[in-house]
Amino acid sequence: MNFKLILQYDGTDFHGWQIQPGLRTVQGELTAALSQIEGTEVVVHGSGRTDSGVHAEGQVANVHLEKAFKALKLRAAINGNVGKDLRVIDVQPVAEDFHARYSAIEKTYCYRVVNEPMISPFWLRYASHEARALDLNRMKECAQLFVGTNDWTGFSSAQSDTENKVRTIKAMSVSEVYDQRGRCRIFQITVTADGFLRYMVRSIAGTLLSIGRSEIDAELVRQVIANGDRSLAGATAPPQGLTLVSVGYDASSPRPVSTCV
Amino acid sequence: MNFKLILQYDGTDFHGWQIQPGLRTVQGELTAALSQIEGTEVVVHGSGRTDSGVHAEGQVANVHLEKAFKALKLRAAINGNVGKDLRVIDVQPVAEDFHARYSAIEKTYCYRVVNEPMISPFWLRYASHEARALDLNRMKECAQLFVGTNDWTGFSSAQSDTENKVRTIKAMSVSEVYDQRGRCRIFQITVTADGFLRYMVRSIAGTLLSIGRSEIDAELVRQVIANGDRSLAGATAPPQGLTLVSVGYDASSPRPVSTCV
Repeated sequence: MNFKLILQYDGTDFHGWQIQPGLRTVQGELTAALSQIEGTEVVVHGSGRTDSGVHAEGQVANVHLEKAFKALKLRAAINGNVGKDLRVIDVQPVAEDFHARYSAIEKTYCYRVVNEPMISPFWLRYASHEARALDLNRMKECAQLFVGTNDWTGFSSAQSDTENKVRTIKAMSVSEVYDQRGRCRIFQITVTADGFLRYMVRSIAGTLLSIGRSEIDAELVRQVIANGDRSLAGATAPPQGLTLVSVGYDASSPRPVSTCV
Repeated sequence: MNFKLILQYDGTDFHGWQIQPGLRTVQGELTAALSQIEGTEVVVHGSGRTDSGVHAEGQVANVHLEKAFKALKLRAAINGNVGKDLRVIDVQPVAEDFHARYSAIEKTYCYRVVNEPMISPFWLRYASHEARALDLNRMKECAQLFVGTNDWTGFSSAQSDTENKVRTIKAMSVSEVYDQRGRCRIFQITVTADGFLRYMVRSIAGTLLSIGRSEIDAELVRQVIANGDRSLAGATAPPQGLTLVSVGYDASSPRPVSTCV
């Protein structure tokens, strides 16, 4: 039977998604738990890798098991065998040909930045910090420049092993929310695309933050997107601000709301 | 000069507020930082102690310094000398006779419980977990039974060294909020009183959770409050769900809103 798993994790104490010998990773911890449950080594497929320190509200994985399980039993069995900073929030039996990565049609990420003189202790793990003023309207306007189909080489890691660097950003938005608990303003950059290159969201977020600080303007952003030379644009934003919000699989998967808190 | 400090901290990695040799505490870390800034040993007064694992969104302290400081400079100096899980969010010069503890007229705490089959990794540090169904209406009704002036001996620690156990609960409310990020329902119990005994909020929260699980009824709660014998009521709820929201000092201090997320 093929099971689709919806996962949340606090990425702080993981060395990212991908299984690596001797390091604690999300895929590694799930593989160990599911192999123990199944009684033999299994392969856990994720929708894609997340880097060290990056979080997930709705990562998706799938695993083929020989044993028959009720969804709720399987969820409880996995959660009993992994750290509490990783939770399977839902398990669904799916068609045999469902693949968390190859069946995915879109992903949504949210990048969060606390814009205050200091970052609240309650957001230290889950947002980056910008003490300088950010111009929300400038950021909102420039966010629309990223929407469309482009070669995103300039916005990805040089070590990226993907050959095709063309991706379509379907939607992008910037919102400001006030968090009552941390008593702080949080800027949220939400991006939905058919796929992402490594560091792509963090590079876009870093560029948009440069725009917010009025260091670069819309014209430069247009150039950078067009010619792919990001040396003129912003730095890659730090990982702890990034969260994988959801992965979409077909028309019936509802697009998440753009304001993600 | 006397300075009032408004503090936030994530209590997870502190052994509570009170200074203790060899242990990391909030008062200890502030005292070390301020003594270094002042160049001599200072005394930091808090509005009251918080236990290990208990958080603060708006704890208040005061400190008398000989040196003259601009508020923003002092805030930056303290924040540069303490861990990032402790932040001074505001510094205000106040009258010489202002005392964080003795001048306080009321405090508000919030107790948070995630009511889902599992607790989201994003709330692991900041809420407790109840997998069983909670009856919000029962909890709301019974919360009103706690409002009033009573001897709260039955709801405090046996080791409490305070002689007068009479406190007035001015307001109490229970609300349910949905957290989009953790995809979970959170029950929030908010209590405002002229003061609290040790473990008082956590004892009240534990009793209210027993009510929510329909283990005890309103009549029993009335008896427990009246005769102070809490052995019949609920257990003390765990510390990580508890947050000191604010401390009030006079009529000009606005009462916080009751729904605290």
